[in-house]
Amino acid sequence: MRHLISSFDLSGDEIHRVFTLASELKRQLDAGWREPLLRGHVLALIFEKQSLRTRCSFEAAMAHLGGSTMFLGKDVGLGQRESMSDFSRVLSQYADIVACRAMNHQTVVDLAKDATCPIINALTDLSHPCQALADLFTLQELLGEVKGKVLAYVGDSNNVCRSLAVACAKVGVTLNVASPAGYEMDDALIARIGQAVPSAKIHRTQDPKEAVRGAAAVYTDVWTSMGQEAEAAAREKAFASYQVNGALMKVAGPQAYFMHCLPAKRGEEVTDEVMDSPQSIVIPQAGNRMHLQKGILAWLLREAE
Amino acid sequence: MRHLISSFDLSGDEIHRVFTLASELKRQLDAGWREPLLRGHVLALIFEKQSLRTRCSFEAAMAHLGGSTMFLGKDVGLGQRESMSDFSRVLSQYADIVACRAMNHQTVVDLAKDATCPIINALTDLSHPCQALADLFTLQELLGEVKGKVLAYVGDSNNVCRSLAVACAKVGVTLNVASPAGYEMDDALIARIGQAVPSAKIHRTQDPKEAVRGAAAVYTDVWTSMGQEAEAAAREKAFASYQVNGALMKVAGPQAYFMHCLPAKRGEEVTDEVMDSPQSIVIPQAGNRMHLQKGILAWLLREAE
Amino acid sequence: MRHLISSFDLSGDEIHRVFTLASELKRQLDAGWREPLLRGHVLALIFEKQSLRTRCSFEAAMAHLGGSTMFLGKDVGLGQRESMSDFSRVLSQYADIVACRAMNHQTVVDLAKDATCPIINALTDLSHPCQALADLFTLQELLGEVKGKVLAYVGDSNNVCRSLAVACAKVGVTLNVASPAGYEMDDALIARIGQAVPSAKIHRTQDPKEAVRGAAAVYTDVWTSMGQEAEAAAREKAFASYQVNGALMKVAGPQAYFMHCLPAKRGEEVTDEVMDSPQSIVIPQAGNRMHLQKGILAWLLREAE
Repeated sequence: MRHLISSFDLSGDEIHRVFTLASELKRQLDAGWREPLLRGHVLALIFEKQSLRTRCSFEAAMAHLGGSTMFLGKDVGLGQRESMSDFSRVLSQYADIVACRAMNHQTVVDLAKDATCPIINALTDLSHPCQALADLFTLQELLGEVKGKVLAYVGDSNNVCRSLAVACAKVGVTLNVASPAGYEMDDALIARIGQAVPSAKIHRTQDPKEAVRGAAAVYTDVWTSMGQEAEAAAREKAFASYQVNGALMKVAGPQAYFMHCLPAKRGEEVTDEVMDSPQSIVIPQAGNRMHLQKGILAWLLREAE
Repeated sequence: MRHLISSFDLSGDEIHRVFTLASELKRQLDAGWREPLLRGHVLALIFEKQSLRTRCSFEAAMAHLGGSTMFLGKDVGLGQRESMSDFSRVLSQYADIVACRAMNHQTVVDLAKDATCPIINALTDLSHPCQALADLFTLQELLGEVKGKVLAYVGDSNNVCRSLAVACAKVGVTLNVASPAGYEMDDALIARIGQAVPSAKIHRTQDPKEAVRGAAAVYTDVWTSMGQEAEAAAREKAFASYQVNGALMKVAGPQAYFMHCLPAKRGEEVTDEVMDSPQSIVIPQAGNRMHLQKGILAWLLREAE
Repeated sequence: MRHLISSFDLSGDEIHRVFTLASELKRQLDAGWREPLLRGHVLALIFEKQSLRTRCSFEAAMAHLGGSTMFLGKDVGLGQRESMSDFSRVLSQYADIVACRAMNHQTVVDLAKDATCPIINALTDLSHPCQALADLFTLQELLGEVKGKVLAYVGDSNNVCRSLAVACAKVGVTLNVASPAGYEMDDALIARIGQAVPSAKIHRTQDPKEAVRGAAAVYTDVWTSMGQEAEAAAREKAFASYQVNGALMKVAGPQAYFMHCLPAKRGEEVTDEVMDSPQSIVIPQAGNRMHLQKGILAWLLREAE
C-alpha cells in the first residue's frame, strides 16, 4: 500500500506510469467508454477548505470508474471527537481510499500514519501534488515529452509552486520561478529536491521576463491563497509587477502556453487577454485534474505495492 | 447540445418525447428493472436554496439510471471565487450535466452561457420548468391525453405558475389562473407566450370559483415562497379567500384532481380535507418529479442535438 | 415491508438471518467480490446529529452493493417545512430505504408512520439498534456462537446500552450492566424486555468488577454523549470509578475482549492501555458496522415482508 502525500512519494517512473494510466482512461472516455475499473469502490473526501476543481474532479473520476465518493466536509471534526489514529483506522474500514484537503500539511501526514488504506493529499498549506502531476500530464499531452522542457512559474512560491518544483525535478523539467523578495521558494525545499533528484534544475529569480523567455509554458496562481486574506493588500503590492499579461507573454514567445491552476483573479495575477488567448490552456488543464486523478486512483488501488 | 432553462426551450413535440421517455422508464422501474442508461455519468447539482423534492428526485433518477450526483451547496460560491465563465467551463469538464437552483434566474442563464454540457433550471425566482413538466406528465398519465384539458391554478402567480403557463400552452392545455390583485401573472409573460404559441389559452381572473369550475385539476402553491418571508403577513391577507378547501373543490366538481407542488402549508393555501381527499394526487405528482426528470436527463444526454 | 426502529422489531431468528447475510457479504468482499445486490437502489440518510461511523458505514455498504446514498443533513428541515406525513410519503417516492439519526426517538417513529419504504433507526436518544446488532455480530464472529455468553457493559445506560440489552435478550446473551447510581438502566425497559423475551438475563450492578468478572467481552461508551455536554462535569464525577483500565480488564480475565462503539475519549472511560491492547477489538467492531448494515439492507429490501 502506498500514499500520495507529496510529489516526493513517487519516482519519475511511477509518475510516468500514472500518466500512462490517465492517458488510456482519457482516450477511453473520449471514445465513449467508461470502464468500471473501480466498481463498488469508495473514495472518502475530507475537505477542511472549500473546493470546486479538486472535489468535483475526484467525484467525477470515481463515478466514471464505477465507484462512489463520500464527501465529508468540515463537520466531520477531523481529530476533534477522537484521536487521529482512531479516526484514521476506522475510516480505513469503510473507505478504499481517502483524499484529504487540510489547513495544515501535518494533518494529512497524521491521517496517513495509522491508515490501512491509501491517503491522497488533496491540497495542504505546503503542497498540492495532484495539481502538479495534472499540470505536467497536460504539458506531456501537448509537447509529446516533458523531459528537457522549461516551465516558468511567475508569482507566489506557494503550495502549487512547491509541488511543481518537486514533480518537475522528478520528470526532468527545468523550472524557472520568478517571485518577489519575501515570496521566494525556500532553500530547504531546494536542498531537499537536490538530494532526492541530483539532476534537478530549478532557477529562482526576481525577474519575470528572465523566467519566461523561451519557456514551453508560463504558469501563475493567485497572489493571495485561501486563508491568506489578511495579507491581501501587502501581497497586491509585492506582486504588482508579476502580472502575466500580453507583454510578458510576448517576452515568453508564441510557443509558450499559459497555465493557471484556477480559480483565477482576472485583472490581478493574469489579464483577460491572456486567460482568453489561444495560448491559454487553463480549461483542458483543469479537465486533466480528473483524468490524472483517475490515473492516481487506478495506480494506488490496483498497482502500487 | 441543449439546455433546459425555461419551458420555452422545448417544443410541444419535444415535451411529448420527454413524456414518452419518462413513461417508459417508469414502467421499467415498476417492473423491477433499472436500466443503466447513464452508467458512469455525472450530474452536478448546484443549489443556492433548500430543496427536498428537486434534489432527491434528481439524485434518485441518476442512481436508477446507473449514474452519480455531485451535490454542491451554497459553499460552492457560485461566481464568487472566479468568473462565471471560468466556473461554468471548468465544471463542464467534470459533469455530464448540471442542474442549478438559483435565487436569480439570471444566474442560471449566465451559467449556461459558456457551459459545454447541458444546464437544467432546478428552480429560480422566475421559473420551475421541471415542476411544470412533471405536473403535465402526471395529468397525461391520469387523463390519457392533456390536449384540450383545463387546469385551474389558484394562488400566487409565482415561478411554478409561470412555468405551468408556458408548458400548458406548448401542449394545448388551457390554464385558468385565479390570483388576487397585485399577484396576477404579468402581461409581459402572457404576451411572450402568445408570440411563442399563438393558440395558447390562459385566462386570468380574481375569482377562484370561476377558475376551477369544471377543471380537470385544481392546483395551488404556498402563498409565501422561500425568500419572501418578510411579506408573509401581507400575503396571508391577500390570499385569504384563495384557499383550496372542500367548498372550492365542490365548485370544481368530482372529476377534478387536486395538485400541489409541495411543500404545503396545510391550513393556509389548502386544507387537510383536500390534501388527504381521494381527489388529491400530490404524492404521485411528487413521485413523477423523479420519473419526468429521468426523461429530461435521458433526452438531453442521449437525444437532443 | 418492515422497519428497523428498535431491536425489539426483530426476532432472534431474524437477527441470525441478518448475521448470515452480513457474514456472506463480508466473505465475498474479503475475497475481492462486491456483488451488486442493490444495483441502482437509493438509501436516504437523514442526520440531525454528527456522524462518522454510521454515515460512512452506510454509504460504503450501499456503494459495495451497487447502490447510492443521498446524504440529507440538518438543512433538510425534517418536519419543519411541511408535515412529517407529507415529508415521509414524498421521500418514499425517491428513496428505496431511509436511515435516520434523530435527536428524539419519536422523530424516527413519526417518520416511519406513513413511509412506504423501510425506515432504519440510525441512532436516537433512546436506541441504536444498528450498533447493537453489529456488536453481537462481532462477538459471534469471534466466539462462534453468542448464545449463553456474557457481555459486560460498564458505564452510562445510554442508547447503545439499551439497544444492547434488547438485542442480547433476543439472541440469548447475558448482559451485565455496571452503572453508577442515577445512570442505571430503567425498570420500564427491563420490564419490556422481560415481556418480549421471558428468558432474558440482564443483571444490573453498581460494581464494575462484579459485572466484568469472566465476561466474554467488556464494553464501554463515553460518559457524556452528544447533546449532554452541559452535564459533563457531573458525569465525570459520577463515572470516575467506572473507567475500563488495565486493572479492570485483569478482573475480567484474559479471555475478555474489549469493545467500544467509538468515538472514545481516551483517558476517560477507557485508557490507552486497554484501547491499544491485544484484547481490544474496537477497530474490527467498527468495521462490522458496515458489514452488519449490509445484512440489514439486504434483508429489509430483499427478504422481509
